[in-house]
Amino acid sequence: MQIAILLYDRFTALDAVGPYEILGRLPGAEVVFTGVAAGPVRSDLGSLVLTVERPLAEVTAPDLLLIPGGPGTEALLADRAVLEWLRAADAATSWTTSVCSGSLLLAAAGLLAGRRATSHWAVLDQLAALGAVPCDERVVFDGKYATAAGVSAGIDLALHLAGRIAGDRTAEAIQLVVEYDPRPPYDAGSVATAAPELVASLRASGLVVTGG
Amino acid sequence: MQIAILLYDRFTALDAVGPYEILGRLPGAEVVFTGVAAGPVRSDLGSLVLTVERPLAEVTAPDLLLIPGGPGTEALLADRAVLEWLRAADAATSWTTSVCSGSLLLAAAGLLAGRRATSHWAVLDQLAALGAVPCDERVVFDGKYATAAGVSAGIDLALHLAGRIAGDRTAEAIQLVVEYDPRPPYDAGSVATAAPELVASLRASGLVVTGG
Repeated sequence: MQIAILLYDRFTALDAVGPYEILGRLPGAEVVFTGVAAGPVRSDLGSLVLTVERPLAEVTAPDLLLIPGGPGTEALLADRAVLEWLRAADAATSWTTSVCSGSLLLAAAGLLAGRRATSHWAVLDQLAALGAVPCDERVVFDGKYATAAGVSAGIDLALHLAGRIAGDRTAEAIQLVVEYDPRPPYDAGSVATAAPELVASLRASGLVVTGG
Repeated sequence: MQIAILLYDRFTALDAVGPYEILGRLPGAEVVFTGVAAGPVRSDLGSLVLTVERPLAEVTAPDLLLIPGGPGTEALLADRAVLEWLRAADAATSWTTSVCSGSLLLAAAGLLAGRRATSHWAVLDQLAALGAVPCDERVVFDGKYATAAGVSAGIDLALHLAGRIAGDRTAEAIQLVVEYDPRPPYDAGSVATAAPELVASLRASGLVVTGG
């Protein structure tokens, strides 16, 4: 089973690496990091550099496609070569998936037309203009299309996918290997639980965290 | 604040990238991926390649040191140059931290002598032979030393650190940006909740997930 993860300038690292850590442990999985050109790709925070090992032209028929999000998504929404590659790859997949603002890219390629999908809370409403049906949920499945909310939600998405692909027992084994028994010390991980003024200040800042 | 993350052959990607995604958002943070030599470093699952941007010799006084775990830890436990670098870097830090089997490396360097520490469940008991006091907890603080359990526990560790470094409000803002509101679809993420036969089979396999 070939799993293709798209990398691009200013992607969000955990969007890609969370699902990688889960899906890469599926028996028979071959993960391929792909992008416009082979070589280094820098993530949004600046100091993390992942490597594209095979360019898009060499990844023509993945079984599972995963599109991470990040500030760099925006520049790709009008990139005809990337959108064309997404449509062609999607024609081959059993699963087409995204994390965070990656769903905007799937929608821009026309792959989520009329489908239920989720995204990072700060951009969720943009899905509608791109033809999808925004759902304020952490993980959304609509046929072979599976989308996750922001950043860390990709880990939950990947465990759902692992269960559907290889069965509950295998998914549970992977969960135990990566000791995914989350215990966040705060309860501010969603718009529903965070303080309203925190949500407002982050929206205003473009998600840049400031001191205090 | 300089945050140094050690990379080495066959590290576990999420051990490094989970904390990176949290700590890299702290106001004033400068993250440096370091390792024996500058250049690409391949993670344990084979297809993920991160880049060491500055070699150990150029990272002499980090404020925060984070050591990820992985199968590659074992080879470093007797690497005198790396252990010496750990001791020298630790002399400068405000926080010395690890995820997963990274704590074995801190202990081998003599930094956890008599200190409470945690690690991946499968290697937790090895800490005692290296002079530390093993604690079956997800995140353990002992003075400036903070250790996390396996792989995904690094995200929880990093949020604890964010709160201590920059205050609760900033840590909560980061949690909301990365939408860390975990909803694992299974409850097999710890030895306490997983089926005993699953724990036994993973121990016997060396944590390799098999089908079924």
